[in-house]
Amino acid sequence: METQTRRLTRKGQETRARIVAAAAQLMYERGLTEATLEDVRAAAGVSGSQVYHYFADKQALLLAVIEHQTQAVLEMQQPHFAALDTMAGLRQWRDAMVEYQLRLQCRGGCPIGSLGSEVAENNPEARLAVASGFLRWESAIRGGLQTMHARGELDTDPEDLALATLAALQGGLLLTQLQRRVKPLEVALDAMLDLIQTHTTTP
Amino acid sequence: METQTRRLTRKGQETRARIVAAAAQLMYERGLTEATLEDVRAAAGVSGSQVYHYFADKQALLLAVIEHQTQAVLEMQQPHFAALDTMAGLRQWRDAMVEYQLRLQCRGGCPIGSLGSEVAENNPEARLAVASGFLRWESAIRGGLQTMHARGELDTDPEDLALATLAALQGGLLLTQLQRRVKPLEVALDAMLDLIQTHTTTP
Repeated sequence: METQTRRLTRKGQETRARIVAAAAQLMYERGLTEATLEDVRAAAGVSGSQVYHYFADKQALLLAVIEHQTQAVLEMQQPHFAALDTMAGLRQWRDAMVEYQLRLQCRGGCPIGSLGSEVAENNPEARLAVASGFLRWESAIRGGLQTMHARGELDTDPEDLALATLAALQGGLLLTQLQRRVKPLEVALDAMLDLIQTHTTTP
Repeated sequence: METQTRRLTRKGQETRARIVAAAAQLMYERGLTEATLEDVRAAAGVSGSQVYHYFADKQALLLAVIEHQTQAVLEMQQPHFAALDTMAGLRQWRDAMVEYQLRLQCRGGCPIGSLGSEVAENNPEARLAVASGFLRWESAIRGGLQTMHARGELDTDPEDLALATLAALQGGLLLTQLQRRVKPLEVALDAMLDLIQTHTTTP
């Protein structure tokens, strides 16, 4: 996929990106199986042959969407990741995640998690792509906690804490999506911040 | 649905239950949209007219499956719920959840959570049914924590703690399903037990 992207002209790259963005949006709104290639084609405003020029089949498009959503999720949080080595930075990240769900009216859940849940038992390749996206997310959270640990400010395993924080975030997002209220996400993240606080020696 | 169930003969109830169990299994293994009524009919070993006798459409069957999976999940944990008012009981529940995923080789995720993720954006009635199932689950977890709180052994809000624990469990199950290893579930639940422990005055 990467090789193919590099070989495209600038215009080709833009068309491909437009198809992926349209597919991502449709899969996010309707779920994976409800979003057909024909829907994607119409939403992207391209011809069927253009879709097939860039993507051999729906599986190739799905893998591109997983990569697209992973990058989008990580880019959105990028300004916060560097600050996750203080309680204040962790709180700002928590507030940003909650704020974002409020803006979405608690719709959609996690774009990666939702795809993951749909593919986990019927598409091993896509499952691994989602798992790989989550590892990058976990790694970004872990960085700040490892810095705190290295400074002697955190007296527990930063790796386990990062994975548990990502799990709390995912579960909080799912329950927030189902209940259409932000409270589950708030208490899930607050529980993790409370736990991190009890293991830190700084305010 | 309830009224209809009560009106059935014993044999009718058994046939209906067989159809629901077959549908639940297929939706769990393949995902909701991949499990057609024809697949369900074949797996249950009944005729098409029998399926339509009990369920007007796939939506009616889906709602019955959500109820079936909610009951199954709650029944499986029932022996543990009464003991969630001590750290020892909470640890046994945690171990049981992890053990169960190991037996499943980390496949399938949460039967309710997976359905919830699939229906959340395209089926409001099913979304509310899943949300209602999660409220029953949350309530069962909350009971033990409220008892600890009433005994003066827990110095934090048991309602928030129960919701956060359910969120950690859901996120842990999703990541465990995607990674096919039990570690995410373990650290997610351990983080919550660690947090509960810091708020308790008993061992």
